[in-house]
Amino acid sequence: MMEKLEEIMLHFASYGRNEDGSISRVFGSEAYDEAAKELQRYMQECGMESHIDSVKNIHGVFPGTDPAAGEILIISHLDTVREGGIFDGLFGVVAGIECVKRLQKEGKRTRFSIHVIATNGEEGNELGGTFGSRALAGHIDYSEQFLSKAAKYGFDEEKLRSAEMDFSDVKYSLELHIEQGRTLYEAQEEIGIVTGIVGLQRYLITIKGRTNHAGTTMMEYRRDALVRMSEIITMADSLAREMGNELVVTFNKVEIHPNILGVISDEVSLVMECRNRKESMMDEFVRRVRERFETGEDADVKVSFSPLVRKAPVDCAPELVQAGEKAVKELGFRYRLMPSGATHDGNMIALRVPIGMVFVPSREGLSHCKEEWTDWDICEKGVEVLYSMIQEI
Amino acid sequence: MMEKLEEIMLHFASYGRNEDGSISRVFGSEAYDEAAKELQRYMQECGMESHIDSVKNIHGVFPGTDPAAGEILIISHLDTVREGGIFDGLFGVVAGIECVKRLQKEGKRTRFSIHVIATNGEEGNELGGTFGSRALAGHIDYSEQFLSKAAKYGFDEEKLRSAEMDFSDVKYSLELHIEQGRTLYEAQEEIGIVTGIVGLQRYLITIKGRTNHAGTTMMEYRRDALVRMSEIITMADSLAREMGNELVVTFNKVEIHPNILGVISDEVSLVMECRNRKESMMDEFVRRVRERFETGEDADVKVSFSPLVRKAPVDCAPELVQAGEKAVKELGFRYRLMPSGATHDGNMIALRVPIGMVFVPSREGLSHCKEEWTDWDICEKGVEVLYSMIQEI
Repeated sequence: MMEKLEEIMLHFASYGRNEDGSISRVFGSEAYDEAAKELQRYMQECGMESHIDSVKNIHGVFPGTDPAAGEILIISHLDTVREGGIFDGLFGVVAGIECVKRLQKEGKRTRFSIHVIATNGEEGNELGGTFGSRALAGHIDYSEQFLSKAAKYGFDEEKLRSAEMDFSDVKYSLELHIEQGRTLYEAQEEIGIVTGIVGLQRYLITIKGRTNHAGTTMMEYRRDALVRMSEIITMADSLAREMGNELVVTFNKVEIHPNILGVISDEVSLVMECRNRKESMMDEFVRRVRERFETGEDADVKVSFSPLVRKAPVDCAPELVQAGEKAVKELGFRYRLMPSGATHDGNMIALRVPIGMVFVPSREGLSHCKEEWTDWDICEKGVEVLYSMIQEI
Repeated sequence: MMEKLEEIMLHFASYGRNEDGSISRVFGSEAYDEAAKELQRYMQECGMESHIDSVKNIHGVFPGTDPAAGEILIISHLDTVREGGIFDGLFGVVAGIECVKRLQKEGKRTRFSIHVIATNGEEGNELGGTFGSRALAGHIDYSEQFLSKAAKYGFDEEKLRSAEMDFSDVKYSLELHIEQGRTLYEAQEEIGIVTGIVGLQRYLITIKGRTNHAGTTMMEYRRDALVRMSEIITMADSLAREMGNELVVTFNKVEIHPNILGVISDEVSLVMECRNRKESMMDEFVRRVRERFETGEDADVKVSFSPLVRKAPVDCAPELVQAGEKAVKELGFRYRLMPSGATHDGNMIALRVPIGMVFVPSREGLSHCKEEWTDWDICEKGVEVLYSMIQEI
């Protein structure tokens, strides 16, 4: 039986490993299916009852002493992005099993059962990210279109429905994950106690100006859509920095017409995305950008914003934040309270039960690439925090 | 014989006319060849010796009274862009012939011969814009690559070389053209006496930042290449307005990587183009933009500018500017002295002889489209100015 955390991580990371060291254990791949079977075997070896559900989430249950006490979940994902790294997802799964092993080693038992779940398709995929946890939470879109895409991966409506979990006995869901940002890395902190997952708002910005000859059209007669776009980006970027409080804004999906030499651009579209823990803060940010740039129908350069996506922020359970903070303080680790900037399985699970999350730092803030790294001793500290939180609960 | 300017213009505009009213008398088209033959016939009908040269420029010569006095050219182009308008190019050709007709009608003769040339391929085409006038000026690239492209249009090296004109007897070259900008239209002026053709500088700007997760990367840790691009465009646009004096700057050929949702852009490239009558002004402009944004190799966001094209401005002959100004003053037309923001056949002809240019307004500043328009009475005024200038010379 594998003992060291590093050894266990590298063993599972070998499923889907590419020649360059990156890992493609992507949704729908053979590598994922093989890793799932191996994980089931390993959970059983670690004294858990294990099964793979109808959407290929892997479950492992370590029974508690009191059947009436219900269970707590420790959840994370087994899939990776294409050419991803070792830690994203896998670490949370392995950490959950480590907690179970440690209980056994120390001859301890919790009143509640510990239910470790490794989800399928958390990363962006054809059926949408957080696929496995959406199925668990019963948050699946049963449209014909979705079902026909799901069929390609062998999932029919019956399989999708039967993956839905009964949450009535679940008290909490915990997740340990790499940060995927630079905050802990830059601050040289070891642990992040997550207060919530940021919400997200996306707007399609369309800008209509007027094309013309780039030589003969003097500056005062121009209605250059590309220049207006640049002003919007410059202003919004400054505003986000000015408003602070971890508000972030990003622009992408830029399309420029005609984008050829010697011609002034007449049409531009792009997506503005902002994220923050506070919905009111995002609303205020978007309001100020729109107020400054959005125009009526008859403007020289017409600018409109139309909402594309609005995801509300998710709060972590205050009692779990408190439990996490107590644990790190007792353990003497350098830590901070922080939001998660990325979406996680927790977004879906929070629809059903209170969630708690713990982060470990990502070196250079990198993730979703082969350079993704967290030192093994820090990983061990992450497991210790998770273990302490379980006992605290 | 056609008498009215409108009638003559619409007759030649019928060659290459599309159903929607736009005109595609493009380089290499049958429509062009037919129009060329018809133009030759018409020049002969108007008392000129006419021939089509080896690169399909159409020449018409009206002899002067003194063979030793040489000739002056009246040049413009017969081709159009794809889906272009009635006036661009054609108007200058027809106006030249109108002057010859008027001399005859009034029983006048000039000492010098009047040599009207309608050029081929002035608009952008596979062999490069100002093709016909480049051939006349002997400014052809005889590379294997160019010759193989030229062969597709039936032009071999011999044909290209034999189109070169003997400029030793040519005193001046005159051109009447639509403005293709809004300056005269906005100022409600009837005539522009062109002081010169602007030069042009193009730079490739490359920006290298760092990609990262758009949710987890706080503003202070970002190296967003798209934001830097926006700052450059915003600053350069303001600077051009601030420096004034008809300096224009335009950005295009923007490429953004990876330009996908949820990801910060790491690489952007684009072309910055500025145009002005004064090379020193463009140099100063580019210097100030580079000084502000160009970085060394080790910058967080690396920005570099590399020169692509540097076309020097072309001056119109001062004596022709003077002759033009005298003419419009005597005729009582509303006018201004102005540079040409666009390239013309004059760019090439100026390599060999002093040039003069006259503009008429473009409605709404539009050209290269079916909406291109100049009122007929203004066209007549343009012809009058050209006629007066010929007599002034």
